[in-house]
Amino acid sequence: MNGHVIRKSYLNFEGMKTINIIGLGNVGFHLALGLATSSRFRLQQIAVRSLEKAQKEVPKELLVADINALQPADITIISVTDGAIAEVSALIPYQNHLVVHTSGTSDMEVLSDKNRKGVLYPLQTFSRGKEINFKTVPFCLEAQQKADMELLRDLASSLSESVYDITSEQRKSLHVSAVYVSNFANHMYTIGSEICREHGVPFEILLPLIRETADKVGYMSPKEAQTGPAIRFDEKTLREHEHFLTNKTYKEIYQLITESIQNV
Amino acid sequence: MNGHVIRKSYLNFEGMKTINIIGLGNVGFHLALGLATSSRFRLQQIAVRSLEKAQKEVPKELLVADINALQPADITIISVTDGAIAEVSALIPYQNHLVVHTSGTSDMEVLSDKNRKGVLYPLQTFSRGKEINFKTVPFCLEAQQKADMELLRDLASSLSESVYDITSEQRKSLHVSAVYVSNFANHMYTIGSEICREHGVPFEILLPLIRETADKVGYMSPKEAQTGPAIRFDEKTLREHEHFLTNKTYKEIYQLITESIQNV
Repeated sequence: MNGHVIRKSYLNFEGMKTINIIGLGNVGFHLALGLATSSRFRLQQIAVRSLEKAQKEVPKELLVADINALQPADITIISVTDGAIAEVSALIPYQNHLVVHTSGTSDMEVLSDKNRKGVLYPLQTFSRGKEINFKTVPFCLEAQQKADMELLRDLASSLSESVYDITSEQRKSLHVSAVYVSNFANHMYTIGSEICREHGVPFEILLPLIRETADKVGYMSPKEAQTGPAIRFDEKTLREHEHFLTNKTYKEIYQLITESIQNV
Repeated sequence: MNGHVIRKSYLNFEGMKTINIIGLGNVGFHLALGLATSSRFRLQQIAVRSLEKAQKEVPKELLVADINALQPADITIISVTDGAIAEVSALIPYQNHLVVHTSGTSDMEVLSDKNRKGVLYPLQTFSRGKEINFKTVPFCLEAQQKADMELLRDLASSLSESVYDITSEQRKSLHVSAVYVSNFANHMYTIGSEICREHGVPFEILLPLIRETADKVGYMSPKEAQTGPAIRFDEKTLREHEHFLTNKTYKEIYQLITESIQNV
């Protein structure tokens, strides 16, 4: 009997705030998955460019291919490439609701004036095929109005234990930093794996080193954590490595980063 | 009674192989700490350049300041800078024992001919003030003689679950790869932390991203894991980031790695 009532109340979604998502790239997709488990926010609709290409993990009944089919929601999350945010936000068929984007670089102001503006920037790297534990993802929030900030804080803290108020300017510096510590660090892994492949050594031997290097900066500053031939000014090893490297770009990267380490 | 016998047998170190270490840099120091817990190998002596400067965690009675004071040991581990390995190995006051170095770049052959040669290369980043769980550290082994290889395998597997037979040539490629995935990745963390500092954002916001980026390459190749404006060819964001960066070297690194990501 109780179970029946709970189920009915659940079906009515009483008191739950509604969310629309526009765009199902890596960020939109993982947010949709994360929201599926929320007890306070209900994913209402997802606008996608192509119904056929939408990930199969997303319930079909939520999808719409036409942005005009979106019904008003408490929060509309625009998760598209930076260049399309302004245009997409102008196409939303309702007004005076909270509309946020998820970009690290775009100003909050690029959003159309017809709705209230905000930003919900999850500072994490999202890939298909790798599940994300949202509990540890820092959410960087910004909103024009105090009440909207509260609403975003509510949403973010229903997903994560790590929620920050961040200005547009600070968010930009975080995004540039994120490119170095994530995108560029990952490219260092790519170069390492290419060198291993060329010499018939399994890349997995390097995984404990990669994890320890990442772990260490939780205990000391990256500057204190720096090891290796560059910081030791070990010229013999540096020359041998440069001689070893045949790929022109890898060699340039080796020289430039070595120089930068030595000048910090 | 039993306890007494066990203790006596322990004190006699019956059947335990002996280890000498020469050099107490980051690698030598962590190896000494790791060996302290071994039940099959006993740390016999450690030769250091300065008794005063030796880390206080190391038992004083094991230290000698004169390499001539070393007694023969089953394995002598030379853990000094690459340029000093040949010279130090020639100074060892005994012959026909197994002597190994711990270098990623030096050939096994640089060791003096008066002892049997080998390599014990722990593929990890060691810093003072950050304890290492040796169980997960890959040990790369090489030896001239089959029996010595067995002895090294015994030693390495008493410390770690991850032991590899690696030729000098493969070891060099691993070391170059390690510079990229660890030393250079860590420098990317340094640049990220500098940018955060300049803009009054706490670096700790980036730690979950750093950990997830490192973790992800255990599930997919780094090439598949690549995200960010470079791989998306998001020219708008790339231009904004370059405009944002005022440090000349950081900007050069941004451009070179972006180009490299786009050409992989």
